Amino acid sequence: MIEVIGFDADDTLWHNETLYHQVKDDLGELLAGYCSPADTKDHLDQTEVNNIQYYGYGIKSFTLSMIETAIHITGSRVTTTEINKIITIARSMLTAPVDLIDEVEATLESLSGQYPLMLITKGDQFEQERKIDISGIAHFFRYREIVGEKSTSTYRHVLEKYALDPSNFLMVGNSLRSDILPVLEIGGQAVYIPNETTWFHEHADESEVNQVEFAELERMSQLPEYLMQLV
Amino acid sequence: MIEVIGFDADDTLWHNETLYHQVKDDLGELLAGYCSPADTKDHLDQTEVNNIQYYGYGIKSFTLSMIETAIHITGSRVTTTEINKIITIARSMLTAPVDLIDEVEATLESLSGQYPLMLITKGDQFEQERKIDISGIAHFFRYREIVGEKSTSTYRHVLEKYALDPSNFLMVGNSLRSDILPVLEIGGQAVYIPNETTWFHEHADESEVNQVEFAELERMSQLPEYLMQLV
Repeated sequence: MIEVIGFDADDTLWHNETLYHQVKDDLGELLAGYCSPADTKDHLDQTEVNNIQYYGYGIKSFTLSMIETAIHITGSRVTTTEINKIITIARSMLTAPVDLIDEVEATLESLSGQYPLMLITKGDQFEQERKIDISGIAHFFRYREIVGEKSTSTYRHVLEKYALDPSNFLMVGNSLRSDILPVLEIGGQAVYIPNETTWFHEHADESEVNQVEFAELERMSQLPEYLMQLV
Repeated sequence: MIEVIGFDADDTLWHNETLYHQVKDDLGELLAGYCSPADTKDHLDQTEVNNIQYYGYGIKSFTLSMIETAIHITGSRVTTTEINKIITIARSMLTAPVDLIDEVEATLESLSGQYPLMLITKGDQFEQERKIDISGIAHFFRYREIVGEKSTSTYRHVLEKYALDPSNFLMVGNSLRSDILPVLEIGGQAVYIPNETTWFHEHADESEVNQVEFAELERMSQLPEYLMQLV
């Protein structure tokens, strides 16, 4: 029996990676006089992942990684004006509107009448709260959790807080690594709804994925029917 | 009757502003060839406060404000090497050890045997969690809340979550604006323990402060005695 349904936010409820992709393209173009956009992108990807341990997730972290990349990949020849341009790009990311994924609103409206819904997102709290607040769908969620990493211990901790048995919890998300595998590992259920622009850092080892069973849906609107089949 | 005691973290449990002060001095020195350290500091202070709406609190936000300040105050003459130096400073802030304020550990040890303690801090979640985790005092707290702003609605929300009546809640902190006034406003109790390096942004209007009553202690070690007097 499902008691609570958890939803990831970025790239499950609203588009997120598309914004990062666009900005990575913009950075490649900005630095095209120094090196190829492909090299800039590779360097940025690596810097970003290396910096998670120091900075955590989010746009401010990404911005510092962009500045670092710009300095390193140009051998310090990047101009101050170009760095200022990066800060302007960051500001536009931080104030970007929230673009809901198709059918999300209607699906949440329908499900929230039947189940308590929980939003569980990782990332920068300030940035995630802003997005939740302006998303127009915040009122569908009874619980809101912004966590550091979506590890098994994080999920355990959250479910304990609400006295929920993992077997009665179902998580919906686009990241095998953050939304599906850890929830299955603690005995919960999970529905994977892939998004074509999922961040490479969220990919999981194929061998790990092959060892477990979970549902995969193409679109959010298929979720209510899937849940009815479960009952 | 006090049911739960809340503690602010930065500059109540551990030193924090001293690190920012040191870094502001370092930035002034770094840019001394362009303008006076006092001007740099003023510009940074203003940039920081203006940027809270976009960036929120914390070291990453502060770093972006430092870079922005360096670009603006030098009329874009700051070098890429100098900007890289700012990023290095940021990295050192993000990995700095946690320096507990005198007598905090012993006081928490004593009080945690008598009351459930709650840590309530605002700021960047990733950065605050790192500090809590390495502080050596995390185990004294039954509850841990990292919030966006310490407003009356935030305190109300937190206390409701734990089904606590505000009149049975006592908050301890060094910021009149964030720890004392909003708690008194919702009917809670508060103990102000000033710290000589409290951030100017945390200061409150004198007129507001004069209208309310709260206890003021010089040192954390006086807290157990104060609580005994209350009973």
